[in-house]
Formats: sequence, structure tokens, C-alpha cells
Amino acid sequence: MKWCTYERDGETAIGIVDGMNVYDVSNQLHTNSLLEVIAREFEPDIDLDVAPVYPIDAVTLLAPYRPLKNVICIGKNYEEHVKEMDTAGAGKLVIFTKAPTSVVGPEAVVERHPELTDQLDYEGELAVIIGKSGRDIEHVADHIFGYTILNDITARDVQKQHVQFFRGKSFDTFCPIGPYIVTPDELSFPLTIETKVNGQNRQSGTTDEMIRPIEELIRTLSTGMTLEAGDIIATGTPAGVGHGMKPPVYLQTGDTVEVSITGLGTLRNVIV
Amino acid sequence: MKWCTYERDGETAIGIVDGMNVYDVSNQLHTNSLLEVIAREFEPDIDLDVAPVYPIDAVTLLAPYRPLKNVICIGKNYEEHVKEMDTAGAGKLVIFTKAPTSVVGPEAVVERHPELTDQLDYEGELAVIIGKSGRDIEHVADHIFGYTILNDITARDVQKQHVQFFRGKSFDTFCPIGPYIVTPDELSFPLTIETKVNGQNRQSGTTDEMIRPIEELIRTLSTGMTLEAGDIIATGTPAGVGHGMKPPVYLQTGDTVEVSITGLGTLRNVIV
Repeated sequence: MKWCTYERDGETAIGIVDGMNVYDVSNQLHTNSLLEVIAREFEPDIDLDVAPVYPIDAVTLLAPYRPLKNVICIGKNYEEHVKEMDTAGAGKLVIFTKAPTSVVGPEAVVERHPELTDQLDYEGELAVIIGKSGRDIEHVADHIFGYTILNDITARDVQKQHVQFFRGKSFDTFCPIGPYIVTPDELSFPLTIETKVNGQNRQSGTTDEMIRPIEELIRTLSTGMTLEAGDIIATGTPAGVGHGMKPPVYLQTGDTVEVSITGLGTLRNVIV
Repeated sequence: MKWCTYERDGETAIGIVDGMNVYDVSNQLHTNSLLEVIAREFEPDIDLDVAPVYPIDAVTLLAPYRPLKNVICIGKNYEEHVKEMDTAGAGKLVIFTKAPTSVVGPEAVVERHPELTDQLDYEGELAVIIGKSGRDIEHVADHIFGYTILNDITARDVQKQHVQFFRGKSFDTFCPIGPYIVTPDELSFPLTIETKVNGQNRQSGTTDEMIRPIEELIRTLSTGMTLEAGDIIATGTPAGVGHGMKPPVYLQTGDTVEVSITGLGTLRNVIV
């Protein structure tokens, strides 16, 4: 299933996307919070036949939800991306976070923040949605609710200035997520990740190029640290970020960034 | 006022600490969540004369609350601490985060995590509690609810292994906070920060030794990134961590760590 959160007539609702339609399942689930549904940790009982249905173009898709902690991000997880960046941390499992205040939806704008950065960049990534809490997780598949697309927007100069990545990754609107969360039964790995800027191909990779695959990431992350239902883990970006181009090309006001992943649709945001 | 969260007879309540007594103000505030009270962003209307009162020794103090995002931490903010550590990041404003799953209270135990680290260390710190949300904050005092003590427990070897600090700072129980949150009117800066391990003096510093004072930290952090009521900002640790001793001395099972700050009491946790 494809789960989304959307707004219609000023009301927020949980939707199931099917083709060009979205079914409103909020009433059946007794909540309009998709995070709350995930946190219940059991298979939701829904019947699309009795759900109100709308054309997807008639609603505004929002971020699936704001998580209850920072988004957990993996750095340097694709070999060719490691090569295009500076070598600090190469070979190491790099883990940092993005503030949940930076999360925005698939139709939201990304702020250019010109007073703070001259080096705005994109990073198209596959994000894993944890569905069942646990520590020292062994059977990883049991703990995954689904997958979505995440654009790890980054101010490269700020990232470098502070050594630790948090601030340069956490300005408001720096974390577009969506357009929906797709359950594992609908996906066939490996998935292809592609990023375009103004229609021009920039990133192209497949998830089997990950240096540390998803199973390993979740096992390691949950070692000693409880992962919780609703946690969002961005699994790293393939080569082709603007910072790695020669010369570097950064995002400018008016640019459109589209990240597409097999089966997950396209996350499209405009820089303002 | 000294705000706390405590448990008594299996019930969680919000308390006001006065000397050796704690007043239960949950009913007057219509919640047992101190975070919710702070997020209301107005002065709570409470009358201690009609509040149930208990001896503080008859209740269990908990963490004031779990924040809605990772704890924001400032690294390398005391000159003598910068010197005792490796020099990477010296002179830079280092900002990282700790997972909210690591937050525990003043009477909780800290797990030793022997399978993950041989270098468990303490960092006694003053933490600022944001009381009013804002971005690009200018009048910092208007945005501070109060202050508390935070022990930024760190696995030094894990911190180093991953380059980015997040994982080595985020294992479960790595973030004791408390014993209570004190409003600014009760405090007179500079404050003295002292840490003892098994009664032995280890850290001693005052808040006027901060390289970047609280005003500057909050102005910078809120630039481009919205800070929210309830956010917790740990302002850095003075010299004297175990890693900086010659030879280094790390925490062991059974050790007691006490962090005391003027006016904020003592945060005391045992390693198990």
C-alpha cells in the first residue's frame, strides 16, 4: 500500500494512494496522524470500498508526518559519492541527524537561505520507515513499515564550517519527504534512485550499490540504541551531487529538484 | 521556581520543588506533562497553597520530560576542555545531537554498554530549556524557560570510530537530565559546574568560561532553524573529563557520577 498524508478543504487526513486516486481512511483509523497509525505496531484494518475517494490532483500532499526525533542519516554509503566528496570519514559508518523542524512535504518549497549559504545542494535518498520498535534488532524485515524518498538538502559551506554535519543539514525546509510511504510488499529490490535538477540528470544509482545495505544499517543503529516505530532513516546518497561537479554547481532560487525511486514515485520541490 | 516531574504510587505528576517538599501542580495545570506546560508559552497560573505536598524523599524524580527532537549539544565550548581533547574542530562551533531515547532521569541508572565501548565517559553540562519558539531570535532571554543539569555520557571510542558524534553519544541511558528545571529569576550567573566521580573532584568550571556564551549560542542556533518550546540545548563541558586524564580513566560499573551546578542541585547517576 501507498500511505500518504494530505490536506483537503483545510483538513488533514491519512490517505491510501491507488493510481490517480486517494482514499480517505482517517475515519476508519480514528486519527489523522499517520505516525500514530505506525506507532500502533499492528496491521491497520481498513476497507477501501467504504472510504471517501478523491482525485489525487484535488488534494495537497503533505509530509507523511513529523517524526518524534531527528531524522537519522547515513553519510558516505555509496562508493562513487565518497570519491566525489572530501575523503574525511571514508570507509567509516557516518551517522548524523537532521532536525524534525526541517521536514516538509512533496509540494512544499525549499528555502534558499541566501544569507546563510552560497552552497545549497541536494542529496536524493531512499528512506526507511521503522514500523516496530526494538533494540539489538536481528530480524530487520519485521521492523520495517515501508519506504519513502527523502531529499537531504545541505548547505555545504555550513556543513564544513561546523565539522559536525547537524547545522548545515537542519535549516528550515531542508528535509523534503514523500510523496508517500510504500509498504515492502509492493517493492522489488534493488531500487533505482535518480535525481534531476531542472530536468537535467544529476544522480543515478541503485540500492545494491550501498556500501552498507539496509539490513546492516538497522542492525548497527539499533545496537545499544532503541529504534522506535516512526523513526526515519535516510540511507545515503549516490554520486552526482552539485558539490561533486567540476566546477561545483549549487542550487539557485527557482531550481526544481526531482528525486525518483522505483515504486516510490517522485519527490519534487522548488527552491525559493 | 523549580519544576520537576516525579512518580508517586505509580502516577506521574508535575511538581514544584520548595526545599525538601514537592507540590503536586498537575491538577491545576490539567496535565502531567511538563513539556506541554512549557509549550503553552505563557506563565502558568498555580497556587501552591491548594496543591498536595509530599516530602521530596517520598517521590521518585524522573527526567523533566522527553523532548520532541534530539537534544542539541555544543562541543568544545570551554578552552581548557578543547586542550585536553584532540584538536579537531578547535575554534569552530561544534553542534551535534543526542537521541531522545537516551534521556533518563536523576535517579535512573546509566548502562555501561560493555559490548560496545571500553571508553565510557561523563561530561557535566548546563542545559538551557527553550520556553518560546522562534527563528532568528534576537532577545534571547524572552525565549528561555529555565536551566537544568545534563550529563552528556559518551562512548569515546564509538564517537571517534564514526567521525560524527551522534552514535557514540546516543546509546540508551546516555543522557541523564535533572533533577529539576529552574527558572532564570532564581539564578545568578556565572554558575559553577562541578563533576565528581565516586566523590572525587573531576570537573570544575564556571559558565563565564564558555567560548561562546548562551546568548550567542541561541542566536546562532536559531538562525535559519526554528527553535521550539521544550528544546534542550546542552552548552558544553568544562575540562576534566576522564578521556583527558593522563592516563585516561573511564567509567566502570558501580561508579557514581555527580554533576552539581549553582542553584540547580545535583544530578547523580550510577553506572550499571
